[in-house]
Amino acid sequence: MQKFEVTILGCSSATPTSKRNPSSQLVNIAEQYFLIDCGEGTQMQLRRFKIKFQRINHIFISHLHGDHYYGLIGLLSSMHLLGRTANVHLYGPPALKNIIDLQLNYSETKLHYNLIFHPLNNTAPQLIFEDEKISIQTILLNHRISCTGFLFREKEKPRKISMEKITAYKIPHTELNNIKQGSDFVTKEGAVIPNEKITTAQPLYSYAYCSDTCYDEKVIEQVKSVDVLYHEATFMEDMHDRAAETFHSTAKQAANVAAKAAVKKLIIGHYSARYKDLQPLLAEAQSVFANTALAVEGDNYLIMS
Amino acid sequence: MQKFEVTILGCSSATPTSKRNPSSQLVNIAEQYFLIDCGEGTQMQLRRFKIKFQRINHIFISHLHGDHYYGLIGLLSSMHLLGRTANVHLYGPPALKNIIDLQLNYSETKLHYNLIFHPLNNTAPQLIFEDEKISIQTILLNHRISCTGFLFREKEKPRKISMEKITAYKIPHTELNNIKQGSDFVTKEGAVIPNEKITTAQPLYSYAYCSDTCYDEKVIEQVKSVDVLYHEATFMEDMHDRAAETFHSTAKQAANVAAKAAVKKLIIGHYSARYKDLQPLLAEAQSVFANTALAVEGDNYLIMS
Repeated sequence: MQKFEVTILGCSSATPTSKRNPSSQLVNIAEQYFLIDCGEGTQMQLRRFKIKFQRINHIFISHLHGDHYYGLIGLLSSMHLLGRTANVHLYGPPALKNIIDLQLNYSETKLHYNLIFHPLNNTAPQLIFEDEKISIQTILLNHRISCTGFLFREKEKPRKISMEKITAYKIPHTELNNIKQGSDFVTKEGAVIPNEKITTAQPLYSYAYCSDTCYDEKVIEQVKSVDVLYHEATFMEDMHDRAAETFHSTAKQAANVAAKAAVKKLIIGHYSARYKDLQPLLAEAQSVFANTALAVEGDNYLIMS
Repeated sequence: MQKFEVTILGCSSATPTSKRNPSSQLVNIAEQYFLIDCGEGTQMQLRRFKIKFQRINHIFISHLHGDHYYGLIGLLSSMHLLGRTANVHLYGPPALKNIIDLQLNYSETKLHYNLIFHPLNNTAPQLIFEDEKISIQTILLNHRISCTGFLFREKEKPRKISMEKITAYKIPHTELNNIKQGSDFVTKEGAVIPNEKITTAQPLYSYAYCSDTCYDEKVIEQVKSVDVLYHEATFMEDMHDRAAETFHSTAKQAANVAAKAAVKKLIIGHYSARYKDLQPLLAEAQSVFANTALAVEGDNYLIMS
């Protein structure tokens, strides 16, 4: 089974606190590193958690509020100063390119690597990355300014075949690859053994990142049945009006999205600095959706569990 | 005597390390807070050292290499989000304003306070701040891109008069202010007592911040006889050529500037990430200029000692 895990690098909203950094997460799928959002101090957090940041080839920025991208230019600069030559793919709102270019120009920096920019539009979900193993799509969120989430999905994997079946049906090794790809097995005697009888499908895992957004039914549609949903929970329900005004969500609303989308697990984060103790947010979410966890910096969350 | 001290918030060059943040210093003169440079993570460092950042009214950016300003937009945003209404004066290269404005515009942020920008030119030293107590001038440095240092000087203070002199000459209290301002004292009998006989001058302290720069005799002229000189020492002397190429200084060169300018004390900083142990840099500088100290994050340096 391929690795599929998320490490929280920052979980604070708006301003950092003495304990919490602004938004950033590292998604590791089979040792491919994807960075989602990059608040100020993300490069320090990567060092702190001993994550080799030169292994990040793809960076996704959800929107242009500072707590989601002020650490990007510093990370890109450090990659350059530390001798990187491998391409970096950057996905974000079109204006992000202007901001980065302006800063590189004024410092007279010519990056030693290619920074390949992929502007995101916000009119319909887009497939923005695909290889043999995974696909990444945008999720349309509902925030004060244009904001997209990101949906990571494993692609169809070879089917699994057990040693017992191989022995029972005397399947030669030369046939195994075809069978894993879905072919039926034809015995020496000419009997056809249907593929479903000898193999099992491997589960395909998925992770959805939704920050920042108000409660929106359209988000539910887009994250239906994912294994793990990260959904912002900036406030608690007693600040429902403030959440609506600022296009953020409460812990209860995040849990409602999880419940209605029938996801397997919910992680909440993007906490307002006013909450020193996060247990009340967790309790509020769990009262609606039991399998909720708090985003905690440095913690790894397995998507395939 | 008024307080005049410097707190080091960051002392790393180019990239942060797991132990050191990029450049930033807080100068506290009689409880007025001045921030010099603002590398990524400066707002976190201010929190870490329990410095109330809303008390900073003046921010000085030496140049547009990222390790000196990538934390500025985050600090300005946090000041705003935390309800600041008092003016902030920002001094830096003209293009800094474009960079800040662009980021505020894309996030649709209208600051709740006035950000008053003072563009610095780099053709001659400028007086950029003055009140009753201090003046601040730019220092022309010699770096790859336009870069200025900052020279903080106490302004002439009232002269000191001792109780002994007041008693001996029977000076009435009504005369004291004039005498402290430099007037001679005329006794009831009409005898003129020269001011110098009854008062002493209070020392006027000064602090010069020089980062980033190669070794340059023109810098020496501008920092002559200051009490404390902060001078970058990115490299050691065995990397003399690399220092010259990158328009940085070695620890020995920083010490030479201190010696030739006849300053009282030297602080070195802006260390390359390659130096885990800083004692060799200190030893190299001290071999030329004994009264040298290392910039250490969180440490306070008294200018009037």
